[in-house]
Amino acid sequence: MAAIRKQSMVQAGRPRANTTEEIARRHLLQPWPVAGSIGAEARGLIGEGDGIYVVDGEGRRLIDGPAGMWCTNVGHRNQELAGVMYEQAMALSYNTPWYTMNEPSAALAARIAAHAPGDLDHVFFTTGGSSAVETALRFMQFYNNVRGRPDKKMVVSRGGAYHGSTYLSASLNGRPRDRDWMDGADGLVVKLSCPDPFRRPAGMSVEAFRDLLVQEFRDTVERIGPDRIGAFVGEPVMASGGVIVPPEGYLPAIRDICRENDILFIADEVVTAFGRLGHVFASKDVFGIEPDMITFAKGVTSGYFPLGGVVISGALVEEMRRSNHADAMFAHGLTYSSHPVGCAVALKNLDLLENGILEHAGAIAPYFQQRLKTLEELPLVGEVRGLGLMACVECVADRESRNPLALDNEVGKRIDAHCHELGLLVRPLIHMCVMSPPLIITRDQIDDMVAILHEGISRTMDDLRAEGLWQG
Amino acid sequence: MAAIRKQSMVQAGRPRANTTEEIARRHLLQPWPVAGSIGAEARGLIGEGDGIYVVDGEGRRLIDGPAGMWCTNVGHRNQELAGVMYEQAMALSYNTPWYTMNEPSAALAARIAAHAPGDLDHVFFTTGGSSAVETALRFMQFYNNVRGRPDKKMVVSRGGAYHGSTYLSASLNGRPRDRDWMDGADGLVVKLSCPDPFRRPAGMSVEAFRDLLVQEFRDTVERIGPDRIGAFVGEPVMASGGVIVPPEGYLPAIRDICRENDILFIADEVVTAFGRLGHVFASKDVFGIEPDMITFAKGVTSGYFPLGGVVISGALVEEMRRSNHADAMFAHGLTYSSHPVGCAVALKNLDLLENGILEHAGAIAPYFQQRLKTLEELPLVGEVRGLGLMACVECVADRESRNPLALDNEVGKRIDAHCHELGLLVRPLIHMCVMSPPLIITRDQIDDMVAILHEGISRTMDDLRAEGLWQG
Repeated sequence: MAAIRKQSMVQAGRPRANTTEEIARRHLLQPWPVAGSIGAEARGLIGEGDGIYVVDGEGRRLIDGPAGMWCTNVGHRNQELAGVMYEQAMALSYNTPWYTMNEPSAALAARIAAHAPGDLDHVFFTTGGSSAVETALRFMQFYNNVRGRPDKKMVVSRGGAYHGSTYLSASLNGRPRDRDWMDGADGLVVKLSCPDPFRRPAGMSVEAFRDLLVQEFRDTVERIGPDRIGAFVGEPVMASGGVIVPPEGYLPAIRDICRENDILFIADEVVTAFGRLGHVFASKDVFGIEPDMITFAKGVTSGYFPLGGVVISGALVEEMRRSNHADAMFAHGLTYSSHPVGCAVALKNLDLLENGILEHAGAIAPYFQQRLKTLEELPLVGEVRGLGLMACVECVADRESRNPLALDNEVGKRIDAHCHELGLLVRPLIHMCVMSPPLIITRDQIDDMVAILHEGISRTMDDLRAEGLWQG
Repeated sequence: MAAIRKQSMVQAGRPRANTTEEIARRHLLQPWPVAGSIGAEARGLIGEGDGIYVVDGEGRRLIDGPAGMWCTNVGHRNQELAGVMYEQAMALSYNTPWYTMNEPSAALAARIAAHAPGDLDHVFFTTGGSSAVETALRFMQFYNNVRGRPDKKMVVSRGGAYHGSTYLSASLNGRPRDRDWMDGADGLVVKLSCPDPFRRPAGMSVEAFRDLLVQEFRDTVERIGPDRIGAFVGEPVMASGGVIVPPEGYLPAIRDICRENDILFIADEVVTAFGRLGHVFASKDVFGIEPDMITFAKGVTSGYFPLGGVVISGALVEEMRRSNHADAMFAHGLTYSSHPVGCAVALKNLDLLENGILEHAGAIAPYFQQRLKTLEELPLVGEVRGLGLMACVECVADRESRNPLALDNEVGKRIDAHCHELGLLVRPLIHMCVMSPPLIITRDQIDDMVAILHEGISRTMDDLRAEGLWQG
């Protein structure tokens, strides 16, 4: 029976578009399903992309508001990236990094090192953000084992954080609901408060809030003991947590405490690197800090190819070389580490960023933030915040309480549905909408995007009022 | 200073070939480095590939003995795969699987489901083997949380196993040295003996050895308790452990014990799937078992693109849908899950496999095994074993003791060095050499490969005798 049913679903060529949803419901599991619909779900079909636009299953052209998943930085249908994929695949499609090496990966490592702050000059390549974070954490564990400090392994993370979707990297996640039904290495992780100025205690200044957060870290280090803490891991701007820009001075203060206590500072720049904030890396250029390691992914290939990695301080690597355990093996690496095609795509992507797109992103960011900020005139909107070309529109029940208007996670989805009709893909996040368009977006396109968002939120307010769910 | 040095390494275009090694030593970290040389190491440069061949930095053409890393199944420089990468990247280079869907991923899921045994008809895509194993294990944890069995989470693995390079997946690894300096989730894992007939107790029949292994699993389940064991994870043929083909009847017996005790059987087919044993999946077609989940990667795209995944039983998925926790979220997924380009490459790769390569691989495998088996005439060789197009040449100190001739891991490397001179890339594995060529290899090319191996091993024997390291 199963065999017959399965047979009937398979076509000689590719399936017709109108059967894709049916096929997906029977066979495709997508990220973050809920138990009630797992294995019986289709999501909105996207057929093609071009520049900042994608086209949905009904042929509707939509602005790709989230740039895929914070990643399509140079935009869709970039012929240079597609071309280099073909050329490198025809030259060398794969080589094992266990015993051999390819030229694009060495060249890319050097280019990335040149952009990284301080002495961060060694690059380990992975296939994305989760494996980049795994690599950074496993390196920290190895580092402390070799140094004879096997108990110095705890990792400090924060509420609202998102660091990945493997057992260990997901243990660092601090967003609501990510861990309700999932296991994690909880004994290895300690979490600090989310540095969200919008949700600081009522009546407290942002500066006082920052000092409170910094003191919390200091107290945590003292309570647990610096001899037991291996690393602090943090996104300079929390992305999936709702584009949380920390208070001025917060990151340098955390960085100082790490240095004082021999705790590695790992900046998770999976979202912020490769142009989102106008620079290849944001840690130093935007926030003035030099981490011990920086993780990256997404924008490094503009999403065309799964690639990520970690830039590691030369001092750490040298400390390992000078240890008394020359044979100690960092038994870590992926089949697709240093993939020649991925590295070739990233080299071309970096060319594009360096030759105009970074500059454009930096120049247009103030306009992007300023135009989005106008949405605060809508009473459903509690705050519009952001930095560079990433922003978040957060909806509140009322501005007095600042309580999130979640409505069983519907508000973001409702706005998304209206915006979709109007020509904009939104990334709904419970009661928030995240905007992080391709970096090539123009002023006119930003105007279009904000006009659609304004109308989509207005229609949502009308609906909520009509249904008696909100009085604003 | 650091900035100046870094600047000098960066070129406007791609670096010249003769500087690649120098650049790699300064900037590129490759998998599995040892502390003594980490961050100061270059590996042998590979410049291009064509069919079963690659070309090294000196322009030498080499047979790609390990097919990259068990992955270049349809061979290098396949224009159809390179072409589909370009075409799909120009059509749709990326879409977020969180909120949207693309056609190639749905079509590929259906094609894979049609090849998978039993009711394994739902596919979750990842970026490789480690993330595939993470997905299977995290699904098992989620599954038992939703079923109200939060204590049923232990994972049974085996000595000699290799399952990945993330914290959790690496915890299952049972090869020597993989865990000497690395941390793992040891409290979650229990390991059984390696089912290696070559290393069975002296004087014991293979059948008795099998029964001993099966009884060990039965005893382990009884000791720990079936209520505490969530899954058994096993490669049908252990690949990186040295191509260990288990005794006849072993896998079905393990599978039965799993079923009797509500333990999920996860077949890790990252190496064996997509043609290595002549079939898309080997679990049923070769070993007669129907797992609850099958993990795959590598051959699914012939290494051209990082893609992996898990095929999950429809019954498990349906059990989740019928649970009392419809809102329970399987909070898992990667940015690059269901990547449109990767899935398009895999669809084309599957076309190639179905239209002749699977058949060729199955037809030529006996010749491959038979020719390699002739190497047993060399006294350094303790055993040549294998199945399909994967094989291992294991070197021994003497055939009586069967003790591995490791010589500080040098023997495999020595054979590799000689074979490299003669035109063959070997995958050295301590005292073993693993062969898993592209599936398109011809009889003449197999003859070339075996002749080179014969000469390379002979030269190694001469060297060892001359150095007084071996008397054979």
